[in-house]
Amino acid sequence: MLCLKEKRVVVFAEGCFGPVTSKVATSYLRYRHKDCVAVVDSRLAGQDVGAVLGYGHGIPLVDSLESALRFEPQILLIGVGLFSNELPESWRGQIALALSRGIDVVSGLHFRIATDPEFAALSAASGSRIWDTKEPPATLATNAARLDELDGFVVHTVGSDCRVGKKTSAIEITEAARRKGFNAGFVATGQSGIYISGRGVAVDAVPADFIAGVTESMVIESAAHHDWIVVEGQGSISHPAYSGVTLGLLHGAMPQALVLCHEADLSHHKGWPNAPLRPLAELIAVYEQLASFQRPAKVVGVSVHCGHMNREDAASVVERIRDETGLPATDVIHFGADTLVDALAAHRRGLLGERTEASLRVAAPARNH
Amino acid sequence: MLCLKEKRVVVFAEGCFGPVTSKVATSYLRYRHKDCVAVVDSRLAGQDVGAVLGYGHGIPLVDSLESALRFEPQILLIGVGLFSNELPESWRGQIALALSRGIDVVSGLHFRIATDPEFAALSAASGSRIWDTKEPPATLATNAARLDELDGFVVHTVGSDCRVGKKTSAIEITEAARRKGFNAGFVATGQSGIYISGRGVAVDAVPADFIAGVTESMVIESAAHHDWIVVEGQGSISHPAYSGVTLGLLHGAMPQALVLCHEADLSHHKGWPNAPLRPLAELIAVYEQLASFQRPAKVVGVSVHCGHMNREDAASVVERIRDETGLPATDVIHFGADTLVDALAAHRRGLLGERTEASLRVAAPARNH
Repeated sequence: MLCLKEKRVVVFAEGCFGPVTSKVATSYLRYRHKDCVAVVDSRLAGQDVGAVLGYGHGIPLVDSLESALRFEPQILLIGVGLFSNELPESWRGQIALALSRGIDVVSGLHFRIATDPEFAALSAASGSRIWDTKEPPATLATNAARLDELDGFVVHTVGSDCRVGKKTSAIEITEAARRKGFNAGFVATGQSGIYISGRGVAVDAVPADFIAGVTESMVIESAAHHDWIVVEGQGSISHPAYSGVTLGLLHGAMPQALVLCHEADLSHHKGWPNAPLRPLAELIAVYEQLASFQRPAKVVGVSVHCGHMNREDAASVVERIRDETGLPATDVIHFGADTLVDALAAHRRGLLGERTEASLRVAAPARNH
Repeated sequence: MLCLKEKRVVVFAEGCFGPVTSKVATSYLRYRHKDCVAVVDSRLAGQDVGAVLGYGHGIPLVDSLESALRFEPQILLIGVGLFSNELPESWRGQIALALSRGIDVVSGLHFRIATDPEFAALSAASGSRIWDTKEPPATLATNAARLDELDGFVVHTVGSDCRVGKKTSAIEITEAARRKGFNAGFVATGQSGIYISGRGVAVDAVPADFIAGVTESMVIESAAHHDWIVVEGQGSISHPAYSGVTLGLLHGAMPQALVLCHEADLSHHKGWPNAPLRPLAELIAVYEQLASFQRPAKVVGVSVHCGHMNREDAASVVERIRDETGLPATDVIHFGADTLVDALAAHRRGLLGERTEASLRVAAPARNH
């Protein structure tokens, strides 16, 4: 692990930077653009990040790390996800340049930079550090299913599909909860979340037996510092490929409250035209039932990802989903997460009883980390 | 991979051989005792395997591999599972002896024998081969959820818990189906199943994103040679630690028929006193619903593991479960798997229509592998 915050970061997104095509880079920039000094994508060199994404104004796109050296970067962050475990040959020189110049490299690729002989030698010579964030923790253990002995309130974002806003909703809920005086912590379980929060485990890369175990460990760690533990979800319980990760996370986190994340007008799992999406009511029932195998949980609200819709269209979609499910709903980018935080707080009050909750809220700020 | 069949095998179960304490060794011996020339457990040296297990009569227990060299073994098979990824120091000499004598080593430990420098050097010098069966396939890919385009009939054993007979039921169903003229193949997804069948992938050791993907690959491979593909299940959908593996398998295999495996009188998940078992009716409904996210599946029968009960007691437990679930039930060890095969065949006929099934059955023997 390696602290990413308040460092001068160059994001590497060669050949793919854009609002849809580079989820890892764009998610990172949404929350950490203040740390970013440049983005590498030679196709877009000379343009401004803000013009491409709608946020991150003033950050230049450059053709290579060389062109960004004038900003004296401290970290090169690989902002691209690949489906293979091979490193594109053309990227090798950029990573080698960083390591030879004493710039730390953070990567969520399946390819491991730290164990590559050339990179390891450069790192040893310059003192540059390498953080392969996909590398599972050295110590792995199965869970004990004892999170109900913690005082913390465990919230988990679950989804109807991949890329429907589970990470963004978890972060927005955490931040909105803090603004309302709750001592909330975000637990990252995937690549972009780790880049943004600077910690976490990519549960999709852990040997399958340990999905729930690493999740439980992260919740316990977060609960030492927070009253609300907001755990980022992955995939979907109905996803053909990733449902195992989804259920391992759900059973490892033992949430008491769930927020269902969904994308407006999605009919099939993205990239799986033969896998239709389940009705929201069915998903809500299934998530609650499966969660209940470890401890009772309730879906308290729906977070709707309306993409590039304007505010008015988004509002009407959110209203439709509210009617359909009978639950509070919002688009956290357009309308914030307060609605969800209020629903969560009400659920938490129901679990604790009014008096205890009131005393916890007064105590919270002192424990904030 | 390395062929285990019709070789002279020494099973290593130092310090733990017994009907309950060494599941891997005893499962292997149930089906492959003809290949086994000796079992190493110094505590029991001089005894007979048959006297300890009730099967495997005539196989000697010996104090060390040295004492088994007179049988000219070709394979040393590690018959112990460990929860850690460290190799007990006292085992090192035994593995080194095998490799230096040209004896192949097959291991399902998390510790990798092939990448240990001492063992790798011995193996290179003698030509002994090493098969670390926990090592995931070099090529991993997510699934495509397209098994419904295959002609094969996919059967999957699912469980109420770990160690309730999912592997044994899958093997017994496969063998009983073959005796009835169906061209059935067994797909091993865990350690003991791989030892017994000589192939398969330990899905619990695969990076979590690929559980469904490796399962789909194995089903496709088996379907090239078989009409019935019987996929071994793992864990349980309600298990605190392993449910992710269970669901990944279920969605990767896309079964059309499920057999629920259960142990008589189990009240809680083994080793999880805080995790009560779910009622069978609820488990049946959940498995069918989750499977249906990929394609419709039906639980067609229950396989009840009655342990060391006598035949009469087992019969009454089986009858009780039959009444409780309204499904055909059996204990495959006491009463065989014919009941389940008949229920599966009936379900298959329903899917195909009578005429097609009849023509398939005539064609089957020629394709048997």
